[in-house]
Amino acid sequence: MKNLTELSRQKKSLLCVGLDSDLRRIPAFLHSYDDPIYEFNKRIIEATAEFAIAYKPNLAFYEALGPKGWETLRKTLEVMPRDVFTIADAKRGDIGNTSRMYAEAFFETFGFDSVTVAPYMGRDSVTPFLEFPGKTVFLLALTSNEGAADFQWTGTEGQPLYQTVVEKSQAWAKEYPGELGYVVGATRPQYLAEIRAMAPENWFLVPGVGAQGGSLEEVMAHGRNPQGGLLINASRSIIYASDGEDFADKAREEARGFCW
Amino acid sequence: MKNLTELSRQKKSLLCVGLDSDLRRIPAFLHSYDDPIYEFNKRIIEATAEFAIAYKPNLAFYEALGPKGWETLRKTLEVMPRDVFTIADAKRGDIGNTSRMYAEAFFETFGFDSVTVAPYMGRDSVTPFLEFPGKTVFLLALTSNEGAADFQWTGTEGQPLYQTVVEKSQAWAKEYPGELGYVVGATRPQYLAEIRAMAPENWFLVPGVGAQGGSLEEVMAHGRNPQGGLLINASRSIIYASDGEDFADKAREEARGFCW
Repeated sequence: MKNLTELSRQKKSLLCVGLDSDLRRIPAFLHSYDDPIYEFNKRIIEATAEFAIAYKPNLAFYEALGPKGWETLRKTLEVMPRDVFTIADAKRGDIGNTSRMYAEAFFETFGFDSVTVAPYMGRDSVTPFLEFPGKTVFLLALTSNEGAADFQWTGTEGQPLYQTVVEKSQAWAKEYPGELGYVVGATRPQYLAEIRAMAPENWFLVPGVGAQGGSLEEVMAHGRNPQGGLLINASRSIIYASDGEDFADKAREEARGFCW
Repeated sequence: MKNLTELSRQKKSLLCVGLDSDLRRIPAFLHSYDDPIYEFNKRIIEATAEFAIAYKPNLAFYEALGPKGWETLRKTLEVMPRDVFTIADAKRGDIGNTSRMYAEAFFETFGFDSVTVAPYMGRDSVTPFLEFPGKTVFLLALTSNEGAADFQWTGTEGQPLYQTVVEKSQAWAKEYPGELGYVVGATRPQYLAEIRAMAPENWFLVPGVGAQGGSLEEVMAHGRNPQGGLLINASRSIIYASDGEDFADKAREEARGFCW
């Protein structure tokens, strides 16, 4: 398994680059290639890999392209350097035998190091993903969007749902070889400290810095642990830093800004 | 939009056939074809379309095959007769711009009539799917698995989460052109009547009859409304009724048993 703490120390970074790669937003000159999204991803990865410890393709953007989008995803994974961690941002979760098939899809067929999972269906929808040694499950806890308030903040006897999710899943993970992490949005950094107290050793995948308005400094202050413990995701602010032929150079500059 | 009530009256059925098609379970003779899952699906659809009003490919089973699984899914949709309703059982849900891409993937790229959506991320993760006129969103309410108890039954002031999901989403749907339905498991039929009271006019997609142990009679008694209102899903009990060369005939017999 790739050691995130080690990668973070080598690169002096906790940056995860989100590959939300959209045909409508990539530079126009790439459209002359057979597979423009692959060409875009390859150049973004080459330009930023010195500063990024993880890459997170957002599955929706590949699925919207139909079968050839999955081929683009497969090729993108092939050009990932060895010293990065990969996250399938898929937010899957279903009854046990179906979750098992999703886990096979991402961990075995595509070879991702981790996947994001939605908790709504409970224990037997999550544990099939935890059965894979050396793989990581990032379970949605508190997300960065406005709608997080609708259900994640509701709860029983003063405990909001996102805390119940963290508490119960901590117990489940003890029985399985896979690693458990959490998705915790950057747009509410005060809650990061609270979830860190409940889950001191788990890695958090933190979206919402950049285009969604979260502050990097606050996230670092509230969420870090001695191992690092945070994957700070930035997508649009890096990959669309420029829409010209210099897009990779501009992405590199943006990525460098996340290092210390 | 295909009218489910009309289809149900024509076929005297509320059956949805779940295409959880697995290379490890389909008849051995199909493995000599280039695309065994497509050959299997085509024969199952031809054999059962007289009795089924809907088909529900379970996306996990196609994703596990990598890019070629999505090609199999595309070809399967091409052989669907005109008089059936199609459901992408995908359980997606993400921040707004990402949910929009998932909606494009299933409604536009693949041309499904409906998709299953997970509610954990709240309003702005669900409404992008409801923006498509003539399409239906089946939102997870109470699922058929054991883990449903972990979060769906927890709640605020006596209202379990699955009821909060139904109540809030009823209000959201009023502002959008798409249709809202719910996933309500058959394994707890007493709750079907309760959710029916909260959502008298919505269609429910009901998994859990058959292999998961739910009773068809109880589901019909507790969940029907004057329009029909129920899509009774059966997957394994129909598609794997036989593992021999007679699998399509046996599937047809099983499907016929769901008609009145």
